[in-house]
Amino acid sequence: MNDWALTARCQAFMYEYAASLDEERFEDWVALFDAQGCVYEVLSRENRDLGLPAPIMGCYTHGMVRDRVAMLAKGVLTYRHDRLLRQVSNLRVRPAGELLRIDAGLVVYRSDEEGVSSLYMVARYEVDVADQGARFAIRRMAVVVDSFGIDTMLAVPL
Amino acid sequence: MNDWALTARCQAFMYEYAASLDEERFEDWVALFDAQGCVYEVLSRENRDLGLPAPIMGCYTHGMVRDRVAMLAKGVLTYRHDRLLRQVSNLRVRPAGELLRIDAGLVVYRSDEEGVSSLYMVARYEVDVADQGARFAIRRMAVVVDSFGIDTMLAVPL
Amino acid sequence: MNDWALTARCQAFMYEYAASLDEERFEDWVALFDAQGCVYEVLSRENRDLGLPAPIMGCYTHGMVRDRVAMLAKGVLTYRHDRLLRQVSNLRVRPAGELLRIDAGLVVYRSDEEGVSSLYMVARYEVDVADQGARFAIRRMAVVVDSFGIDTMLAVPL
Repeated sequence: MNDWALTARCQAFMYEYAASLDEERFEDWVALFDAQGCVYEVLSRENRDLGLPAPIMGCYTHGMVRDRVAMLAKGVLTYRHDRLLRQVSNLRVRPAGELLRIDAGLVVYRSDEEGVSSLYMVARYEVDVADQGARFAIRRMAVVVDSFGIDTMLAVPL
Repeated sequence: MNDWALTARCQAFMYEYAASLDEERFEDWVALFDAQGCVYEVLSRENRDLGLPAPIMGCYTHGMVRDRVAMLAKGVLTYRHDRLLRQVSNLRVRPAGELLRIDAGLVVYRSDEEGVSSLYMVARYEVDVADQGARFAIRRMAVVVDSFGIDTMLAVPL
Repeated sequence: MNDWALTARCQAFMYEYAASLDEERFEDWVALFDAQGCVYEVLSRENRDLGLPAPIMGCYTHGMVRDRVAMLAKGVLTYRHDRLLRQVSNLRVRPAGELLRIDAGLVVYRSDEEGVSSLYMVARYEVDVADQGARFAIRRMAVVVDSFGIDTMLAVPL
């Protein structure tokens, strides 16, 4: 709780997570997950509040996380190409067994090719990371989305 | 000014303040105020800039702060139940006599039950806290709202 | 990378930068630039991505930076007077030769005189500062705007 250096490290980690996605460095994003085992899930706030476990999407191995962005990296998919800016806010850290639990807010803005910006997504990060000394590795990344009425929300990872 | 640990503690305090409201843990919110004496006020930017002291709402004792959320905790009030996300931004700290003064931005997003999100509120926090060693206690919390044209803005505390 | 005190100092610096503009303390804003030589540029994301160097606007000396806000400070210009709130987010710091490079997100909200708030601007800061011990001095401030379709965006500095 009083370890500000630890909080600062977690903050730097989450900012790098967001930057890797904002800058479409998808291989860097994959590398933030634990190759030995990890989960990436997008959950609706509605299901979450009702205790329903079904995610909107889920990846349950490192290979699935890699596959998640393989098409994006190769430019295979065609989709409206907006520029996104992710704001990670109000980051809090607490120990969770041998892992660290990070909670934070996420607000994403979308700017189209004509330079018009709008609010895209409001969500919360719930992240379990292993502290491997030189780096953190994500064991579980849950993105609980308050905005679950957005049709293009699964085009890129959150 | 150079005490980064102090700034980090204030940041953690304000993030807990916001989380207690986001998560509707209203008793936890009340506990952040100084039981020996405290003020909670919502002020319009317009009045503030003109030097007019009248708040939009004010609580001038710990009991009034408690009353502020008593109805919410008991589910007595009926109001549109949106999910709110509060972003506390650009937090700055300076000594103010025996207290600490915290200034920060506040942006609140509202997401309705259909999962549609929108900007709800833009404001600034002006907070005086007493550093009681193990914890902070709010002596005065002023929320100066740039968005004072919102009809439901007083349904829950900011 | 592991110098959290340095990151905290950079964060405090950027928050002061934003506050000087939010509070229209334009002389304070000018004083954050290096009097010995500095650049202030606003670039569109579009030009930036295409490698085109032309800025939307640029100031290439300390005098030009001062001139940028001279009219604002004196109230010479007439323009719609909105209240702005700047959120500096996801701040990252790295050494860049003898300078420090700061990258951060910027989201600006506008609130008009009727108290109606809206999203005004989405951008990224790319800042090179000289660490002069007691203070930082800006050598180059580039504001890369994702929102370049806004007619009033050059009324005040970003």
